[in-house]
Amino acid sequence: MKVDENAPIGIFDSGVGGLTVVKEIMENLPMERICYFGDTARVPYGSKSKETIIKYSRQIINFLKSQNVKAIVIACNTASAFALEQVEKEIDIPIIGVINPGAEVAVEKTKNKKIGIIGTIGTIGSNIHKEKINEIDKEIKVIGRACPLFVPLVEENWLEDKITYQVAERYLHKLKQEKIDTLVLGCTHYPLIRKVIEEVMGEDVQLVDPAYETAIKLKKVLEKKSMLATKEEKVKFPYKFYVSDLAEKFTDFANTILPYDIYKTRKINIEDYEEMVWNTKVED
Amino acid sequence: MKVDENAPIGIFDSGVGGLTVVKEIMENLPMERICYFGDTARVPYGSKSKETIIKYSRQIINFLKSQNVKAIVIACNTASAFALEQVEKEIDIPIIGVINPGAEVAVEKTKNKKIGIIGTIGTIGSNIHKEKINEIDKEIKVIGRACPLFVPLVEENWLEDKITYQVAERYLHKLKQEKIDTLVLGCTHYPLIRKVIEEVMGEDVQLVDPAYETAIKLKKVLEKKSMLATKEEKVKFPYKFYVSDLAEKFTDFANTILPYDIYKTRKINIEDYEEMVWNTKVED
Repeated sequence: MKVDENAPIGIFDSGVGGLTVVKEIMENLPMERICYFGDTARVPYGSKSKETIIKYSRQIINFLKSQNVKAIVIACNTASAFALEQVEKEIDIPIIGVINPGAEVAVEKTKNKKIGIIGTIGTIGSNIHKEKINEIDKEIKVIGRACPLFVPLVEENWLEDKITYQVAERYLHKLKQEKIDTLVLGCTHYPLIRKVIEEVMGEDVQLVDPAYETAIKLKKVLEKKSMLATKEEKVKFPYKFYVSDLAEKFTDFANTILPYDIYKTRKINIEDYEEMVWNTKVED
Repeated sequence: MKVDENAPIGIFDSGVGGLTVVKEIMENLPMERICYFGDTARVPYGSKSKETIIKYSRQIINFLKSQNVKAIVIACNTASAFALEQVEKEIDIPIIGVINPGAEVAVEKTKNKKIGIIGTIGTIGSNIHKEKINEIDKEIKVIGRACPLFVPLVEENWLEDKITYQVAERYLHKLKQEKIDTLVLGCTHYPLIRKVIEEVMGEDVQLVDPAYETAIKLKKVLEKKSMLATKEEKVKFPYKFYVSDLAEKFTDFANTILPYDIYKTRKINIEDYEEMVWNTKVED
């Protein structure tokens, strides 16, 4: 089958967090069309089981494939941690997550071989960053810390608030004690409180933003497979957004983050995409 | 149809929060059997739309009816706010929520006719407490405040923490300024930080705990319909617990709250209960 290199890139997340990845793709791959799905009816993924996250990811991939995407980006750390390894065996188009690009860059950046990871309970509990980093260099010490209050603090818009500083100090205390020199922002919401995290960690610690690194990785993957968009003239609506709930609220939030305005977000019933054919069963 | 008065009471919530209602029912109606469902795969409900909450509530009611419950308690404020009015038209057994019992007692308690309500964004945005209270007495001033960080703070177990005090002070500031004399804890998690809320509000403000008031209301409803349990000897497993995800974690949490130990929680696929027959369509 000939790939249509002007087909859109499918991107999904548990909600609005993946928009930080969309932003980086818009800025770094400006020719590409995008089809985004945010699972706002079932957000957050961070506290759910692997089995449930694989099930949800399969439904979403079925939806994105029905939109004829040429490649898929899992813009959600929890889904990347729990579902990528399984679902990449099951589909015939390129699929990347946000874990590997961040892990690879962290390995390049660290000098003292001590890397910290922050994320949701699900992401940190999965130990997936540690695995990936130690696959590349098994001498690196990886220290993870779940920060479950960061997402609701971002959603409260308390971005440079004294309460957010105190919560960050408590969460990051051990990582500072361990003298890490590199910290991966392992949750798509965290770049929005980057300033607080930077200030608490101090200037000797380099932050890695997987949203940016994922856009760069996607570019390399598409280049290698000769799948970069070629159409010089833009289609009228190159960016399409779908959610499972609260479409208007999503549009408002997206317009505070993205470099281009969204006119409309469509709500779909994601559970309808359950029954499409999968060749492989979940390995538990 | 003859009602089996020894059938269980169905209780549901978006997750673990409804266990505070279960506890009150265990203590105040010790003869009753209980069948509980916690929607841990789709928690939280507080940030979702009315349409989605009605859909989820219907699935859960279908499940509970398949377990032959004699009555249903919606132990979730958001679902009580968004779904009760609709679903009570659609079923033939008694169903009560946690909003009305709390609202009624608050009206009895207030002397200065100023009542505060705290809850999730969904519950407060619905204005349901205000409506119910003003149905009884339209002169009462009702002041609502959404407190979205309280649930994650409870889940972090920072129950008497200085950060929790600061967050509470910020959230409750306006309610104090307005000189309310009665405050409804409009979210099932909040009784767990009752001490912090009490201290911030001061001793002149009376707190209303809808979990307790709902157990008392349930008792009255069952009495009136001659549906109270009569069996003197207890069945072997009078309490059954079901969830949509993370059954073991639920069991652990439940055993820190309930007066009786749970031995097992079963995980079910709640989406399977979608297709059962409903006579009425959603009114939007």
